Amino acid sequence: MIRFECDYTEGAHERILKRLLETNDEQTSGYGTDPHCELARAYIKKACDAEPADVHFLVGGTQTNTTVIASILRPHQGVIAAISGHIAVHETGAIEATGHKVLTLTSDDGKIRAEQVKELVEVHWSDATHEHMVQPGMVYISQPTENGTIYSKSELEALSRVCRESGLPLFIDGARLGYALAAEDNDLSLADIARLCDVFYIGGTKIGAMMGEAVVIVNEALKKDFRYHIKQKGGLLAKGRMLGIQFETLFEDGLYFEISKHAVDMAVLLRDVLTEQGIPFQYHSTTNQQFPILPDRLLEELKENYSFSFWEKADETHSAVRFCTSWATKRENVEKLIEDIKRLR
Amino acid sequence: MIRFECDYTEGAHERILKRLLETNDEQTSGYGTDPHCELARAYIKKACDAEPADVHFLVGGTQTNTTVIASILRPHQGVIAAISGHIAVHETGAIEATGHKVLTLTSDDGKIRAEQVKELVEVHWSDATHEHMVQPGMVYISQPTENGTIYSKSELEALSRVCRESGLPLFIDGARLGYALAAEDNDLSLADIARLCDVFYIGGTKIGAMMGEAVVIVNEALKKDFRYHIKQKGGLLAKGRMLGIQFETLFEDGLYFEISKHAVDMAVLLRDVLTEQGIPFQYHSTTNQQFPILPDRLLEELKENYSFSFWEKADETHSAVRFCTSWATKRENVEKLIEDIKRLR
Amino acid sequence: MIRFECDYTEGAHERILKRLLETNDEQTSGYGTDPHCELARAYIKKACDAEPADVHFLVGGTQTNTTVIASILRPHQGVIAAISGHIAVHETGAIEATGHKVLTLTSDDGKIRAEQVKELVEVHWSDATHEHMVQPGMVYISQPTENGTIYSKSELEALSRVCRESGLPLFIDGARLGYALAAEDNDLSLADIARLCDVFYIGGTKIGAMMGEAVVIVNEALKKDFRYHIKQKGGLLAKGRMLGIQFETLFEDGLYFEISKHAVDMAVLLRDVLTEQGIPFQYHSTTNQQFPILPDRLLEELKENYSFSFWEKADETHSAVRFCTSWATKRENVEKLIEDIKRLR
Amino acid sequence: MIRFECDYTEGAHERILKRLLETNDEQTSGYGTDPHCELARAYIKKACDAEPADVHFLVGGTQTNTTVIASILRPHQGVIAAISGHIAVHETGAIEATGHKVLTLTSDDGKIRAEQVKELVEVHWSDATHEHMVQPGMVYISQPTENGTIYSKSELEALSRVCRESGLPLFIDGARLGYALAAEDNDLSLADIARLCDVFYIGGTKIGAMMGEAVVIVNEALKKDFRYHIKQKGGLLAKGRMLGIQFETLFEDGLYFEISKHAVDMAVLLRDVLTEQGIPFQYHSTTNQQFPILPDRLLEELKENYSFSFWEKADETHSAVRFCTSWATKRENVEKLIEDIKRLR
Repeated sequence: MIRFECDYTEGAHERILKRLLETNDEQTSGYGTDPHCELARAYIKKACDAEPADVHFLVGGTQTNTTVIASILRPHQGVIAAISGHIAVHETGAIEATGHKVLTLTSDDGKIRAEQVKELVEVHWSDATHEHMVQPGMVYISQPTENGTIYSKSELEALSRVCRESGLPLFIDGARLGYALAAEDNDLSLADIARLCDVFYIGGTKIGAMMGEAVVIVNEALKKDFRYHIKQKGGLLAKGRMLGIQFETLFEDGLYFEISKHAVDMAVLLRDVLTEQGIPFQYHSTTNQQFPILPDRLLEELKENYSFSFWEKADETHSAVRFCTSWATKRENVEKLIEDIKRLR
Repeated sequence: MIRFECDYTEGAHERILKRLLETNDEQTSGYGTDPHCELARAYIKKACDAEPADVHFLVGGTQTNTTVIASILRPHQGVIAAISGHIAVHETGAIEATGHKVLTLTSDDGKIRAEQVKELVEVHWSDATHEHMVQPGMVYISQPTENGTIYSKSELEALSRVCRESGLPLFIDGARLGYALAAEDNDLSLADIARLCDVFYIGGTKIGAMMGEAVVIVNEALKKDFRYHIKQKGGLLAKGRMLGIQFETLFEDGLYFEISKHAVDMAVLLRDVLTEQGIPFQYHSTTNQQFPILPDRLLEELKENYSFSFWEKADETHSAVRFCTSWATKRENVEKLIEDIKRLR
Repeated sequence: MIRFECDYTEGAHERILKRLLETNDEQTSGYGTDPHCELARAYIKKACDAEPADVHFLVGGTQTNTTVIASILRPHQGVIAAISGHIAVHETGAIEATGHKVLTLTSDDGKIRAEQVKELVEVHWSDATHEHMVQPGMVYISQPTENGTIYSKSELEALSRVCRESGLPLFIDGARLGYALAAEDNDLSLADIARLCDVFYIGGTKIGAMMGEAVVIVNEALKKDFRYHIKQKGGLLAKGRMLGIQFETLFEDGLYFEISKHAVDMAVLLRDVLTEQGIPFQYHSTTNQQFPILPDRLLEELKENYSFSFWEKADETHSAVRFCTSWATKRENVEKLIEDIKRLR
Repeated sequence: MIRFECDYTEGAHERILKRLLETNDEQTSGYGTDPHCELARAYIKKACDAEPADVHFLVGGTQTNTTVIASILRPHQGVIAAISGHIAVHETGAIEATGHKVLTLTSDDGKIRAEQVKELVEVHWSDATHEHMVQPGMVYISQPTENGTIYSKSELEALSRVCRESGLPLFIDGARLGYALAAEDNDLSLADIARLCDVFYIGGTKIGAMMGEAVVIVNEALKKDFRYHIKQKGGLLAKGRMLGIQFETLFEDGLYFEISKHAVDMAVLLRDVLTEQGIPFQYHSTTNQQFPILPDRLLEELKENYSFSFWEKADETHSAVRFCTSWATKRENVEKLIEDIKRLR
């Protein structure tokens, strides 16, 4: 079985494991106060050109989204997100469990537009009975989105502008951020992202680490007491250095960007060959997730040797499915997949 | 600096790191559905003589306590715990954040007694206006406690009996469970624990693992939908096998018990020598945490080379402090500490 | 200014005020344990032909919805509702504030269909990763809906069947229940409603009372500890008899039904005359809320003497608005409104 | 049966009922936006000499406490209160249900001292791991307390000073505020109270109204969006004028103070005569609640004709009980009670 069902089917990058071994006997203080976390923070702030930012390491994506969002909103506020956003669909109501509604906007491709946010805000405040409705309190987007698409610089600037005009902090879920940065059509640097939003995170779990997400808080007003929130939400890892060592390794010399690029290269290889074969795609993705629409019959046969995710029915006899590549994807496996799809058509 | 401030100052047991390296290239499914988690579950159920139990792997202690407790209680119920219990003091209100009060019982040594639970329950139900008060919904204890003490079999049997008579699930926080099992005066087996409570967890973070806690749900009624709760509370690790591999290693041939014993041996060595020196202890601990009462002057000097935790003032010139040993504690460091305390008295 | 903006612009039915005066000096116990509450419960159970039901009196609608829903769901569950449902739109996220997502279904007329519920449930359970999503835990509908429409007996039977097959309690928000019972096309009795759902409430605030909603719990499994939930959610009125006396008056001899009918008669009068005038309506309502589509120009003029609610733009020059009648609406005011609309067209 | 078990055994003051009748046919807008609420707000602000304050009307005490506290705290913060405080004991965990711990301080008489607050705050911030503990976020007291005692001006000034130095909003639960203001030893005016705290409420339910509490928000920073919080917590009464009319009546010419004084006079009459008889009291109360310690034998006999509340066992053969007077207490009933106690001793 060759796995393309998600981007966390392997362990961790070998350099990370090696570093864990080398540092294993060191004695350090806990909860992220150790030298490795310090170093990792410095590397990340440099990569983001955001020296005054606060950087915190959490374990996983749902935990990170919940902790950040719950730390920002007041009880009567909700978070604006795409209807397909991870927090709106795939976190078992973690946001609602902290008391907040997810205010969803329609989206065909996983992205939301500045004008949509603007309209939602205007509709809220123009309603005479607005206090009977959840007040928009912040905006959540993912880069790349759950559909593999990315925001361009101009799109993010527009969103950022509307958010600032409306007093809404902008939070970017970067669980797969490296894969967006490596996209052929990306024109956003880490520094742009740090500049345009209020808080974001750099995903490790899906890009080379065993686990771990690095939250970067740019907006001064959101920094206060954040470690309390992490602890309360169960994200303050006792052996915090495990996260520090991983991000130290990923960011000391650009490993994060290098392995992200590999994943995207593999995905684009798959996409381009299938496109040449006349196979349509559900979304135009330039990142590590690809959503070809294939005959159900072919998919049945593919399942014997490959794992992938069912996305949605396209018509009576075809379905959109998702193939994920990752930092660990072997070129030979992608080539084998391509050959098998060609053969089975 | 030699660290005794807590039991997670080092990385992971070398066999765990070795196993992570060996299995790193395997492709597996996520979220704890992989073969390593399966194997670890089988080992743990065998060790607990609890075949029908459900075993789940979570990342850390606060997360585990919150997830278990929130999955059991209805909105108007609270959890009974010692006033010194971890959930009552050191989790930034994580239980309250899920909507539930911690109903505290006084305790001198970290333990609560069956009669205390019985009385609290009777007082609640005998009050004519009981619906104006939080209803007791379950009982939380830790084995060993935050003070290093352990419940004997007869104490746990008595608690278990009262809980069952009162319809209150009994939950045991076993963040340091191995250290209790290795105590000289312990008469409880893992199987006894599984038999006497409804749900408990076996701590990995403090005993050999990088991170990870294994929840064992014994009571059939508490098993339903538990994975939803883990996901919602941010504890469903994407690369779940990281936890599975660690517990597989710890439980395949008794490593967990072996390294627990080492930690306790080191703590007892420290305790016995200091006791011979006439140094009093705040609690009678037979596990890996020791709480000697030492002159403040001496503590000031010790701080230069050792880390440990301040516990509480004993009198004007003395304080109780905590020294933790662990699976990774080096005998030579304990001996050095002993010599320095002797020398500095 | 003649008010049609909602159904609570006046005080209470004069018989209620009279009864409050008569009983004012009585001394009774608090929190709904007094003889008036007991009598009101008996009347209501009789009216519903539901002797074994539990009846509780709460103060307002949002409070009642929140209390009932939070008492039923487990933390990982959500409540299914129409996208236009009161809990989904107009309660400032009260349901989410108790930790639960509202799982919305599309609706053109405020009603949801049995097949929609069935499909949502099937989609949830057929998804391999269902534990990453909020589990459907109950169904909420309103009778009549926020759009003035009502469920027929066959529609409610179908919903009830799907709910029972799926293990989902069915909760009916009856804030305006009397107005549904009085509708010309209604074929559901109070007894039918009690038989087909698990819990519902009979609204007093909008139908003759100063305030108050009578919750009727039919499903035995939902009765346990409900008074704790009421108290926790702030709904256990100290002088509970104030609610008991009002419902006693409304249900001792059919006053509730009589005044409901008056409101509906007034609404139908308005609707029928405007329809004759060729004025279209946004929804086909047979209850006390009517939603004519009128020229914006005319609405501007009407505003000088009448209050009503803007609903939504119909086209560039027309808007749908809402006129509510109530138990207190004076026929002469409706006739004046009709004349003015006729005149201003 | 003559009732002294609580201060809400009767209906409402006759002038309130009369006013409700007189205004019953008026048509007004809902949710507290009507002229009666406006007038009541003006009267209350004048009585408090707090023109810039915001005044909101809620229905009951638990709801008010929950709404105010949840509107102020951030998720990781708790509210400091006496261990006997209403929010700590008698609200079924309503505060915890909104996610917040009640940080309790010991108290013999229901009051907390400025030094206790100061110490709790200092202990929190001096702990190196303070982020593992709930952060103190505000202070809650009641005036008078649940034990009938009152804060003096110097005590309240000291508390206020510590709160302001520590950045903790001070919230006063005034469910029985009138009875404190009428106490013989009271030296605090409504204006003092408004000046010394950040938010407080004036209780109507226990002092003449059918129901209703008037929240006065003095601190500018706490005013924002408060109506959203009221709505979300189920406290925004549709027919808000019902509350406005009651407070208008109570505050237009001092009725609130006059009837409060009557209740206190009746309580003091009872206290003084029993004291003369050599009967001890559990607390020294100068307000409407009195806690004599009486022989259990006598209490058994009293129960046949009087209702009162059991408080706690004093010794093997005596118990402290609570007698409440109110605005509606008849002097002849107090005299009868006194005679019966004298006779039965």
